Amino acid sequence: MTERIQDIAHLGRIELFTPKIDRTRWFFETLLGMEVAHADGKSLYLRGYGDYAAATVKLTESARPGIGAVSWRTASPEALARRVSAIKAAGLGERWREPEFGRGAAFRFRDPDGHGMDVYYEEQKYAAPAELRSTLKNLPIKYTARGVNVRRLDHLALLARDVGLNREFAQKILGFALREQVLFDHGKTELGSWLSPSPVHHQVAYVADVKGGHGRLHHISLWVDNREDVLRAADILAENGVFIEAGPSKHNNSQGFYLYSYEPGGNRVEVYSGSYLVFAPDWEVVTWNEEERGTGVYWGSPLPESFITYATPDVVEEMALARKIPVFDPV
Amino acid sequence: MTERIQDIAHLGRIELFTPKIDRTRWFFETLLGMEVAHADGKSLYLRGYGDYAAATVKLTESARPGIGAVSWRTASPEALARRVSAIKAAGLGERWREPEFGRGAAFRFRDPDGHGMDVYYEEQKYAAPAELRSTLKNLPIKYTARGVNVRRLDHLALLARDVGLNREFAQKILGFALREQVLFDHGKTELGSWLSPSPVHHQVAYVADVKGGHGRLHHISLWVDNREDVLRAADILAENGVFIEAGPSKHNNSQGFYLYSYEPGGNRVEVYSGSYLVFAPDWEVVTWNEEERGTGVYWGSPLPESFITYATPDVVEEMALARKIPVFDPV
Amino acid sequence: MTERIQDIAHLGRIELFTPKIDRTRWFFETLLGMEVAHADGKSLYLRGYGDYAAATVKLTESARPGIGAVSWRTASPEALARRVSAIKAAGLGERWREPEFGRGAAFRFRDPDGHGMDVYYEEQKYAAPAELRSTLKNLPIKYTARGVNVRRLDHLALLARDVGLNREFAQKILGFALREQVLFDHGKTELGSWLSPSPVHHQVAYVADVKGGHGRLHHISLWVDNREDVLRAADILAENGVFIEAGPSKHNNSQGFYLYSYEPGGNRVEVYSGSYLVFAPDWEVVTWNEEERGTGVYWGSPLPESFITYATPDVVEEMALARKIPVFDPV
Amino acid sequence: MTERIQDIAHLGRIELFTPKIDRTRWFFETLLGMEVAHADGKSLYLRGYGDYAAATVKLTESARPGIGAVSWRTASPEALARRVSAIKAAGLGERWREPEFGRGAAFRFRDPDGHGMDVYYEEQKYAAPAELRSTLKNLPIKYTARGVNVRRLDHLALLARDVGLNREFAQKILGFALREQVLFDHGKTELGSWLSPSPVHHQVAYVADVKGGHGRLHHISLWVDNREDVLRAADILAENGVFIEAGPSKHNNSQGFYLYSYEPGGNRVEVYSGSYLVFAPDWEVVTWNEEERGTGVYWGSPLPESFITYATPDVVEEMALARKIPVFDPV
Repeated sequence: MTERIQDIAHLGRIELFTPKIDRTRWFFETLLGMEVAHADGKSLYLRGYGDYAAATVKLTESARPGIGAVSWRTASPEALARRVSAIKAAGLGERWREPEFGRGAAFRFRDPDGHGMDVYYEEQKYAAPAELRSTLKNLPIKYTARGVNVRRLDHLALLARDVGLNREFAQKILGFALREQVLFDHGKTELGSWLSPSPVHHQVAYVADVKGGHGRLHHISLWVDNREDVLRAADILAENGVFIEAGPSKHNNSQGFYLYSYEPGGNRVEVYSGSYLVFAPDWEVVTWNEEERGTGVYWGSPLPESFITYATPDVVEEMALARKIPVFDPV
Repeated sequence: MTERIQDIAHLGRIELFTPKIDRTRWFFETLLGMEVAHADGKSLYLRGYGDYAAATVKLTESARPGIGAVSWRTASPEALARRVSAIKAAGLGERWREPEFGRGAAFRFRDPDGHGMDVYYEEQKYAAPAELRSTLKNLPIKYTARGVNVRRLDHLALLARDVGLNREFAQKILGFALREQVLFDHGKTELGSWLSPSPVHHQVAYVADVKGGHGRLHHISLWVDNREDVLRAADILAENGVFIEAGPSKHNNSQGFYLYSYEPGGNRVEVYSGSYLVFAPDWEVVTWNEEERGTGVYWGSPLPESFITYATPDVVEEMALARKIPVFDPV
Repeated sequence: MTERIQDIAHLGRIELFTPKIDRTRWFFETLLGMEVAHADGKSLYLRGYGDYAAATVKLTESARPGIGAVSWRTASPEALARRVSAIKAAGLGERWREPEFGRGAAFRFRDPDGHGMDVYYEEQKYAAPAELRSTLKNLPIKYTARGVNVRRLDHLALLARDVGLNREFAQKILGFALREQVLFDHGKTELGSWLSPSPVHHQVAYVADVKGGHGRLHHISLWVDNREDVLRAADILAENGVFIEAGPSKHNNSQGFYLYSYEPGGNRVEVYSGSYLVFAPDWEVVTWNEEERGTGVYWGSPLPESFITYATPDVVEEMALARKIPVFDPV
Repeated sequence: MTERIQDIAHLGRIELFTPKIDRTRWFFETLLGMEVAHADGKSLYLRGYGDYAAATVKLTESARPGIGAVSWRTASPEALARRVSAIKAAGLGERWREPEFGRGAAFRFRDPDGHGMDVYYEEQKYAAPAELRSTLKNLPIKYTARGVNVRRLDHLALLARDVGLNREFAQKILGFALREQVLFDHGKTELGSWLSPSPVHHQVAYVADVKGGHGRLHHISLWVDNREDVLRAADILAENGVFIEAGPSKHNNSQGFYLYSYEPGGNRVEVYSGSYLVFAPDWEVVTWNEEERGTGVYWGSPLPESFITYATPDVVEEMALARKIPVFDPV
């Protein structure tokens, strides 16, 4: 056994593209209860009441929905230097980017499927405005009790044409631990892999893109502390006419208690709780075959067909962009 | 900034001494819903349904209550070797111990206050008996729905004559991150420090022993997934005549939602949920002075006097043993 | 407006037939956490921890599943006399029955669809055995924390060939208040009606028997206090291999939070919470047409085809019995 | 046994006096999430999202806090006529009052302790404005998810110099059922009585006024559906600097899960869930003596001294008004 690289601390920020920035803002701010910490050009920077960083979700106006940068914070400046070297060595590095709201310089790269990603270390302190200060000294901002009031960013799921390639990249180059996998055809077809840099069950999942696209998003996931909060989220979304695609129900893999909806810009957003922490350094990957995986549901509503086929952006539009896909040889 | 040592993966096992082993077993097995995985001489080995290890709580019959060994699992064999060297260099090492149920060799040492601790890496796979197998492939054993049905071991709090000395030991020798502190007298008196080797808010707390004892236990803490489960635990303890010392209520530091009771052997046991995960590698320690700390409660029942004065074993008995206290110079 | 008859206090007891009495007992006792208060011949008498009566669910071994007697307790002896007269006048009365465990004489009748029903007033005091006494003086028996630990019987749903006829009977002869209705074809087809003798939203529902049977059961429903308890019930049923037909999800009509399963004998059993109390004496019946009713779900899993087609006993068996159907002219 | 009078359907509306109408409005509207349905002179009319009536809490600006009218809705016009006769016969009637927002004529009387009360039947239909319409046809208005978002008015507790006199009045003249009592000195001192016109455990409690005042309020109580909602309410009140007097904890009598705070005008307001419904027509009153009653808490925070001594208005001010107390002879 080789020691696992522990250079990535956690998922730091995700950027969502949306063609309906005002309605998307309403969804995250009014319904999910996040705070808009900053606005800058075509982008809004939002945060949950429990996110320690100034912003964890960036919304950027765009012609079509989808995922922008996925940013990973490193455990130290040294760890950042090591990861940048490893990424460059793997041929996936692009360039250093200028600091943006709330954080310092970040190094941009692409995963093998072409999703834009950053690694960075510097995170600036966020000084909450007076009206958002909590009476709890260890709470970054006030619990406003507006709408769902999600606590923090938890994870995201990305589609990939070759799940195995991206999973190996996350393991070998980023140092993530593999937690669960869906393997069909006697282990020959890798349909999904769930990985994390920390005891959080997963912070990124790679799932097969059945339409053969590249760089697409399956969903982002926001955390609430209790299953009851997920039920309450269903009440809130239903009252406001927001489409609920599936749940509240319980996944078999991850044991996550989920609710999937589409924000008005088209991206799938999960409100999430439950799951379990993984502390074992020698965790034995849990695998699910066709029969064991079933519908992906332990109990509750079966996942609809759209859960497999719908992602952002739509693959037709995506291919028209002829996005350049980097090459990664995991061997 | 020096990079933090990430050699300890998590709290692996705690041993409780009890003068009433049968009643203590009833408390953990029937009321809290843990499983007895193994019995060996004067010891019982228990586990929560979500603990991946074969056993996380060891109950040992003894003349008086208190804490036995506190065991920490390392992230790798190499990490174990490094920690053993560091502990020896600090002059706190004792000896290698034989494997016991569920795990391999462990190196015994004492923290500066004299609490017995182990570091180890090898953890044997646990094969659940047929009647305890879960229908969820990623659940170590069945959710039996007996009593409180605690999920897993979460943390413990130890009393120490010199909190700072033990806190420094945990930081420098074990590599734990400091999360919150209670500092009175303008920062000169360190009343409590909360530390963890992982994003879990704390896995060990050191709190001042107001009776000037050594090697004593304040409480162990067992995790349930929801606050509602803690309320349910109160119903169960109250129905069975078990003394509830405080809660269910919410701490200000840690934001933990707690319920403290004494198991029949005398040790304080917490049923716990809530709190928050700490992902920031440069987490700014949250400190509480006299005024901010208040009663330690954000809302709910004030902590009674016994919460400060009661610990196991009683200090009079403890001093009679003239336990040898090791010397640790953190400089 | 005529004043509503308030002679029936509440649903007192339901009898279930089961061809698998031992497995059915396991379901109600071990999984749902009810207590067997009495055994008598082929029948077992069970109760939830919050039921004030000695027994509320009677299980009777039988060749096939289905509903036995549905018993209604009156508000007083005078109220009983009045209801017996009204039932007799309606031509639906049968005979006085001997006292059975926990209660006095009951008058047997049939609703227009042929379901056997009783009205009674005398309910004997239940003296809990020592080990089942609660530490709460106002709790009938101990909260044992075994399995789902349902609190009490809540309601039942009966299939009927002519919903309107049975609904009118419940209103005019029993004095129940009508709460909600599903009316299709511009109000001409009455698919379901929900009625209650008290502020509880409904204690009986009549739903159209699409197979044209008589005297059949759709489901019985047992109450838990929180939605979280329903989710926990799903965990418990799933761990024990019990089929979950639908939920946990939220109905639109009644706002009930439901989980439907089949007990081993074949009868549909609901674990239920939420809904709402109706205090208005002039409650305006809420009606749902094809579009509004949708799938019967506000959010969560769609109700499967079996929810419409499956009932106990199977209609083929039922018709073979050539059960005599009474005649009721509501005019 | 005489049949119980079932003429009162439920508690319909309570009026609170407040010297700080703006801050009191902020408390009920912004923190508790009620809607202001109407404003009229010095009064605001509020409602919970689940209240079927247009308004259930009336706030009236006043020099000092306290309770205004307590209004009871009857089951029918005939029932109203009967209650008015009975009240007049008891010598406690005052006069017919003009219709106010949302309801028709009401007959004003005083309970033996002098609290102003109304009985009425006519309740006008409430047409929610478009932005408050729910997507659930059986929900009176939208679930806005603002703050605590209490569902409905549940009950109130009144102080009385002579608890027994007022309890007998509620039983004999209003027809309420007695549910629980606190009786000290071997049953000779009646400290508190809990009564209700329906299966709701209690809609009014009379508790001894230890200061010997008259016509005072102990608390009003607002319902939420789950215990988790009460915990959330504690988070919200704590974040907004509102004093929490006691809880969240569980009472022994009533089994209510409570949180007591003072609204800015000074009146005690409870956020409440749990408890139990009483269906038995021959309910055996649960009595608590000194030892059984203890602190009134089943588990959780002991009730502070203020819970006994604080009420609105302060008794000194109250006596200065020399309120005329009616005479009621229950024999």
